[in-house]
Order: sequence, then structure tokens, then C-alpha cells
Amino acid sequence: MSQLLDRHRALLDDALNAMRTRAFWTPFPEVPSGKIYGETAREDGRAAFSALLGKPFDIPGHPEERRLGAEQSPWGLDLELSYPAASSKTLIAASEKAFETWSETSVETRVGVLLEALVRLNRQSFSIAHATVHTTGQAFPMAFQAGGPHAQDRGLEAVTAAYAEMTAVARNAVWEKPQGKQAPVVLEKHWEIVPRGVALMIGCNTFPAWNGYPGLFASLATGNTAIVKPHPMAILPLAMTVKVLREVMAEEGLPADAVLLAADEPDAPVTKELVEAPEIRIIDYTGSSEFGGWIRAHAHNALVFTEETGVNSVVITGTDAFNAMCANLAFSVSLYSGQMCTSPQNIYVPKAGIETEEGHKSFDAVIEGIAAAVDRLTADPEQASGICGTIVNPATLARIEAARSTGRVIRDSAGTGSGRSATPLIVAVGEDTRMHEEECFGPVVFAISCETAEDAIAQAADLARRKGAITAALYATDQALIAKAGKVFARAGVNLSVNLTGNIFVNQSAAFSDFHVTGANPAGNASLTDTAFVASRFRRVMIRWPKSA
Amino acid sequence: MSQLLDRHRALLDDALNAMRTRAFWTPFPEVPSGKIYGETAREDGRAAFSALLGKPFDIPGHPEERRLGAEQSPWGLDLELSYPAASSKTLIAASEKAFETWSETSVETRVGVLLEALVRLNRQSFSIAHATVHTTGQAFPMAFQAGGPHAQDRGLEAVTAAYAEMTAVARNAVWEKPQGKQAPVVLEKHWEIVPRGVALMIGCNTFPAWNGYPGLFASLATGNTAIVKPHPMAILPLAMTVKVLREVMAEEGLPADAVLLAADEPDAPVTKELVEAPEIRIIDYTGSSEFGGWIRAHAHNALVFTEETGVNSVVITGTDAFNAMCANLAFSVSLYSGQMCTSPQNIYVPKAGIETEEGHKSFDAVIEGIAAAVDRLTADPEQASGICGTIVNPATLARIEAARSTGRVIRDSAGTGSGRSATPLIVAVGEDTRMHEEECFGPVVFAISCETAEDAIAQAADLARRKGAITAALYATDQALIAKAGKVFARAGVNLSVNLTGNIFVNQSAAFSDFHVTGANPAGNASLTDTAFVASRFRRVMIRWPKSA
Repeated sequence: MSQLLDRHRALLDDALNAMRTRAFWTPFPEVPSGKIYGETAREDGRAAFSALLGKPFDIPGHPEERRLGAEQSPWGLDLELSYPAASSKTLIAASEKAFETWSETSVETRVGVLLEALVRLNRQSFSIAHATVHTTGQAFPMAFQAGGPHAQDRGLEAVTAAYAEMTAVARNAVWEKPQGKQAPVVLEKHWEIVPRGVALMIGCNTFPAWNGYPGLFASLATGNTAIVKPHPMAILPLAMTVKVLREVMAEEGLPADAVLLAADEPDAPVTKELVEAPEIRIIDYTGSSEFGGWIRAHAHNALVFTEETGVNSVVITGTDAFNAMCANLAFSVSLYSGQMCTSPQNIYVPKAGIETEEGHKSFDAVIEGIAAAVDRLTADPEQASGICGTIVNPATLARIEAARSTGRVIRDSAGTGSGRSATPLIVAVGEDTRMHEEECFGPVVFAISCETAEDAIAQAADLARRKGAITAALYATDQALIAKAGKVFARAGVNLSVNLTGNIFVNQSAAFSDFHVTGANPAGNASLTDTAFVASRFRRVMIRWPKSA
Repeated sequence: MSQLLDRHRALLDDALNAMRTRAFWTPFPEVPSGKIYGETAREDGRAAFSALLGKPFDIPGHPEERRLGAEQSPWGLDLELSYPAASSKTLIAASEKAFETWSETSVETRVGVLLEALVRLNRQSFSIAHATVHTTGQAFPMAFQAGGPHAQDRGLEAVTAAYAEMTAVARNAVWEKPQGKQAPVVLEKHWEIVPRGVALMIGCNTFPAWNGYPGLFASLATGNTAIVKPHPMAILPLAMTVKVLREVMAEEGLPADAVLLAADEPDAPVTKELVEAPEIRIIDYTGSSEFGGWIRAHAHNALVFTEETGVNSVVITGTDAFNAMCANLAFSVSLYSGQMCTSPQNIYVPKAGIETEEGHKSFDAVIEGIAAAVDRLTADPEQASGICGTIVNPATLARIEAARSTGRVIRDSAGTGSGRSATPLIVAVGEDTRMHEEECFGPVVFAISCETAEDAIAQAADLARRKGAITAALYATDQALIAKAGKVFARAGVNLSVNLTGNIFVNQSAAFSDFHVTGANPAGNASLTDTAFVASRFRRVMIRWPKSA
């Protein structure tokens, strides 16, 4: 039925299985190694990226009324990129035109096209990694994973979930209703998968691909056409993605305009105009709750899927591996300078301190242990830069400054020496401050002294319920307390990681196993990728008729 | 794990299979026969219903601050029923209290409780049928089916879809991530099903059970508690339902307040107060688009699932069974006097007429053929009453009057002789009238003359797209035209029935096979029962921890 689906059938079958078992699985290796990606992949990727700089970025056949682009690398590299741009009206008209064909293309063909595109994107992981480095400000190792294989995993997961849902029930049936002694009524029935229309994916600055692919691929798989609206500072990774998708579509004789780029610049944003267009029927959005609220209020007939603001917490009530805990948390708070939606911000510790395998540790000793671990992790400038990356938005530096005055500075923030950068600030918050009850995006850690372990759990969970949270971490040795915390955080709708040490961090969310965001607190209404994320992007419409005898 | 689920395991397995194959299946026989339901079932049901009249309706343990109820039978029977009532605040507090237990009750236990309740409701089908007759004004045969087995089928379908979705992916996993030459990272993961909170089901006057059960049972199965807000004129069938549910819950040691009745009277409605309560997290609603819009604008954090206003059309372009077609359509427009959300309202016919096995028929001859078939069907007063039932809302009689002046009256409406009743009015609409482009709920049929067959299809589909439609019917002999119409109606999001004759009607929507409402046009955003209807009523929240060696 579809050659591309035939080619990738094993990939899809493995993905379907992984989605159900939730065990570890990925077809896209996360290690940027020549042994895996080819001996010259690293150099080829760098060269391909360099070749893009200072030139108009070409997307063959894309609507183009003008060119624009104002991306600036937080690492200082001159990008001088420009993209084809057209009015919202032009883009929507082109998308609606493409919809006529794409929406009626078979499920198998669409899914085949998307799988092929993901495999091609995987081959471009090195060049996309460089594009990610110089738009998000991430260091290369993270940019490779989050912009490359991990994003591709999330895209594949969305395609898989969409395929599973579109094929979950029969597309044809013979319905035979007994009529007692008379002949039965026999109807033939056929169901069409009918998509909603034009989908808008609004990308973010920090993880344009990882956060963007799920909505984009889910909408395309279910037959909607998509307009990709990147953050004005992080266009390139998504422009490269759009280009690959269009390439595969065109090769298959399908309208490339089924996916379009809506690039803009900070001074002339187009997002609101697109959100307000009545033709937009699906919106996927990652960003602040403030703008999320605006979208909900102004979208017309669009389904709105969001990941929004939240405050992630760590609760430390006890441990039998104090140094390993501190090292693990130090990495979690340093990684990409706290600019992950999964980064911990608040650390709750009983004021009387905790018991450890090294004996009792006071509140201060716990926080100082984490601070010392951050110091060790970031002592070497090159390593610090490789973990912290840069600060993508200058406003974050101002937030660090403001956070300093909320209490006792246990560890101060400083540059890594490369680009616009900042290592974690750790503050023991004073009694009268409430800054920690809001998202303070960036490398800011608030340490909060609590009455008891139960109080610490209650405070963290309550904040998650009120303000949203995507992750929570707990360190505890009391199994009954862990079980109780599990219930409390579950009710607050936040995924909980317990006693992580070693090479696994609360920040990490693995496709096919971890659902990213639960949808059950204000940090987002969508979960990547559960059935609810794909099921309403299309509808089934029936035609039925009497079966000929 | 759950004795009730063990008891009904075969029922659930059969339902899961039927949901996927979409072939004919029902465990609840639609024939009100003593052979099926027990020799005395008919008499017992009548006696049980009669015993309720003129007395306070008892729901053991239900919050009660006062009693109310103002139902009036469109057939004229004195009901004099009253129900326990409490303020919205009291009901919500009781529901939230019950949520603490019901939300943490296992999926298997909850589903077992609901299956048991459905089986018990099935045994009460005769008494529920009488309750349905005297609230909806339906005749007994329809009331038995739509208030009894067919509603139970839809409830079972919702429970089945919810169970399938809650168990679709692993609830526990071991996640083992290779680390090259080092030991793998191994995490154990567990997911909890976390429901949203308190659900509100807003019932309608015409099909309180059939339209109400899907949302009610879907919310309960997924762990939400439910407040049932019946239409003030159709409380009894839902009060009986609530009573049975609470009975089973209480027997299982679960809080009966997981389902509550919010009865009201026309002069003191409580629906808006409930919709506006921030504690309400899910709303299922059947009714006018006008009030649906109000709900969308005023609901806080609630998911809103709706079935709303629509205009259903028949397009007649040709037939090789003219009399059978006319008889089929006559029944469709007469059944419950057009007060079904699936009843056809508009009949589009090319102005030049159509070809039939009896030769050419002019536009007038086609409409007159249908009118004559309605005359034959309703000639006998008893049969007319048995098909048409009564008019549930007096405003419908005024609409019939208004519709008379929109064109040439081909067949006039008249009472059946029993209760407040009206047989179908058939009007060939004039050029300047637009009344047929709005829902004219009740026994009103507009015949519309079109340029061509294609024009007829386009007009009907365009109206469906703009104003909503739940059903469409086409009569045609040209296979290419049928295929084209299939595409056009699919794009308009309306299920199409082609060339129905005999004992199957466009109005009929069978659980486990027909998805009722597509969600793809303004006639509703929900489809009974697809995955989208159940998947977002709950979320999955994870706890993960390192696996002990």
C-alpha cells in the first residue's frame, strides 16, 4: 500500500511494542559517535552546518514574499541566516490547499512519509546538533541528544501513537442484525479518518525540536497540515526539519505545503495573528502560562495542547548515599543552567536536617553538600561550559540577580567563561519571600526549610498542584514515607523520581517510557505522548449502505 | 482482584471485541419480551413504576436539604414525584469527599461495579421504560429501547472504551538503559491512573438515559465522581439510574456519593451554578448550541463534551425502490415526531425530479410520495401514537405553526389522538425562506428543490458543515455519485446512510458499531464512544526508582 511504510514496517512494529511495554527502547542512538553514525558524520555535520551560515536558508517551493531572520547565537557565533517568509494569509491558504490532498492520503502513506523523514533527520543529527547549539545555547552533547535522537524518538512516538489510534478499530465492517424469524438487516459500513484542518505548532527557544516534534508529527500523521511557527531565536532546527519533511513529501508526489514554516523576528511577531485565524484547528504550544492563557482565550475552534510554566521540586528527607545524592542533584541543577522544563528549582529539607549513612546532616549541611557538588562539577571551565551551556535569554541573568536577595546565598552563580553563561545560584530562602513559589526559569535553586518530612512533601506537592510541575524528586529511606509521597505527588499530577543517583537524572524523560508532562496540573494540558494527545486530532466519519444479497 | 469484574469478565471481553470489529453486538436484548426478560417482567415493571407515583423518590443516603420535582407527563399521567435535593455546594463537597476513595479504587473494581450496575439496570428496563414514557413523551416501544437496552449498550460501550484505554499500556515496567561497557541504568516504574475530579453530566429531556449514560459511565469508570443534573422534566430515568449505581457502590463498601443527583425545577435551575463551580472538571452536555456556547464560555477548568444543535438532511437523487424509500423516510420523520437528534429535517431533491423503477418522478411527486407514506403510517390512531409518541415541549407546537408559512404545505401536521401530539408537517419551502437552515426541532420536514443532484449534495453537506448535522441520508443509483457524496459528507463530518429501505432507519445509531456524532462539525465535539471521549478523563502519573540489585 505504501512503499515507505513497507520499508519502515519493522521500525513501526518495534515502536508499537515499546509504546505498550514502556521498557527502554530507541532506534536513534543518543551517542554522537562515528562508529554509529559513520566515520565522517561528525565532520560532515559540522561542514553542513557551516555551509548554511551567512546565506539565505533554502526551502524549495516554499511560499516566499520576503526573507527574514534575526537569530543570534548565545555562544557569539555570527549566524546571519534568513528564511522564506509569507503573510499568515498566504501560509494558511497554501496549507488549506495542501490539506485537500494530504487529508485524503492514506494513513499508511502518511505514516510512511513521516517515518522516512525521521530516519533522514536522524542522519542529519550532527548538523541539527550544531543548529541547536547556536539557537538554544545548549552545549554540544545535549544539543545532539535533545535536538537529534531524543527529539526523533519523541516524533516517532507521536507517529506511533497516531497510527495505533487510527488503526485501533475496524475501518470496514459488515453489520448483521437479527430480525427474529425474518431475514437479518445487513449493512456494510466504512469509516474515513477525517482530520481537523490546519495545525499550528508554536516552538520554544530552548528545545525547538524535542518539544516541537510531538505536536507536529501527531498532526501530520492524523492528516492535518501543519504550520511550524518557531521561536524567533530558534528557527534553524525547525527550518531544517520542515525542509526534510517537504523533501520526502515532494518525492512521494504529495504537496510539500502540507508543512510550512512561519518564521518571524522578535520585533514583528506573527504568532498571535496565526492563533486568531479561524482556519487554525489545532495548536501545540510550549511556553509561558501567561501566553498559554492568551492562546486559550483567543483561539477559535482550535484544540489547544500545551506545556506551560511550572515549579519542579526536590524533597530530601533522608538518604543512605549522601555524596551520590549531592552529585546527582548538582548535575540536575547545572545541566543547561536550569533551562529545562524538567529542571529542579526548589529543594525542600526538614529544618532539623536529615539522617544519612554519614550520620545526621543539618539543613545547612545538606544544602552546602549540594553546593559543594556543583562547585566540583563546574570547577573546570571547559566541563562547566559543556554541562551548563549558555543562557539563552538575557532576562534570565536579571532573574538570577533578583533571586540573590531572597535569602542567604549558599552558592553564587558565575559565568563559565564561554558565551553568555551562568552556573547555579543556590539560595536558602528567607521566611518572608515567595519568589520560589513562581517559576524562576534558569540556574536558580531555592532551598526551603520545612517543619518535617511530611511538611516538605506537602509543600512541594501543593505548589505543583497550584502552580504546575513536570518533575519531582524525593530522597528518602523510609518505605512508608515513599509510598505516601507517591500518592501525594500522584494526586498533584507530577511524576516522581525517587533516590536517583548515578547516571540518571530527574530532568530526563525518555520517549516510549516516560510520559512527559502529565496534563494533570497547570504545567500543561497535554502528555507526550498518550492517547489523548493524538485521538482528537482526527475523527471517524461513516458511510453505510445495505449489503447486496 | 474484583469479584464483580470476575463475574462480568466475559461480558467485558465480548464488548472489547465488538468495539474493535464494529460488527453487530449487544448483550441487552431490545425486544420487550417476556420470553427474554421473564414472564412477569412486563407486569412487574408496570407495577414498580406505578408504585413510585405520588411519592417521594427515595435514594438512600443521598444528601437532602429539601425535596423538589415538577415533572409532567406529556401523556397526561399525574406523576407527583419529588427527589432529594441539596445546594450545589453540598453536592460538590459530598462528591469531592467520595472522590478521595473512588479515585483510588482500582480500575478493576470500578469497572466491575459499573458492569454490575448496567446488568441491574437492564433487569429494570420495563420500569425504566415507563419512567421514560412519562418524562420524554416517547411511546412505549421506543422508550423501552432508548431508555433501556440501547442506553445500557451505550453505557457499556463507554465503560469498555475507558477500560481499554486505562489498560492499553503497561502499569509497571522495568526500564534498563545500556551504558556501553558499564552496568546499565535500571529503573522500576509504576503508573497510577489519576482522574480529574468531579464530573457533571447535564441530561436532556428527550433521551435522558441514552444521551446521558456515555458521559456518566465514562467519567465514573475513569475514577471521577459524577453529579447527574437531569433535565427538570426528565429526572426519573436518571434518578433510577443513580439509585442503582449507588446501591452497587454501597454494597461494595465504596462511597455511594461517587454519584449524586442534582434535581431541579424549571423555575429554579441549578445548571449554571454547577457549570461555573471551579471544582467541576468534566462536563458532558446534550442540548442546544446556544447553551453549549454558554457552558464553554463559563466552565472553569472543565473538559467539555457536547452534543448540540444540528440540521439533518436527506438527499434524493434517484432510487430503484420508490415506495420502499418513501416508507422508510416516512417512518424516519414520524418516529418520536422528529424529536431525535438523528431525525431528518431537510429533504433535498433536484427540481427536475428523479428517475425511479416506476419511471420519472417530479419533485412534487417525490415529496407527495413521502407524504402519502406518512399518511398511511399514521392513519390508524393507535399506530400513529405508538410511532409518534407525544410532543415533549409545548414550544415545538409553535414551531410547527411557524414552519407552515415557509412554503407550500404538502402534508399538514395533526394530533394522533393521544396526549400532546403531532404528526409530521411537510413543507416545500419557498425561495425566500431560510427557516430550514436552522434546527427546527420536532415533526417538521422541509422539502428543498435543487438545481441538480450535485447541488443537492453540496447544499446538504454545506449546511452540515456550517450548522452541524448528526445524520445524512442519500438515495442514489449512480455509484460514482454515491462515492462522491461519501467524500463530500465525510468532509462535512456527517455520517451518511445510503439507500436505506426496510427495517433500518437513518435515525438509528447502534452502540459498538456506529459512532454517534462525529465531533467534526458543530453538532457536537464528542463522538460516542471513541477513544477521544474517554482518554482525557484521566491521566497517568509515574513514580520511578532505581531497581535494587
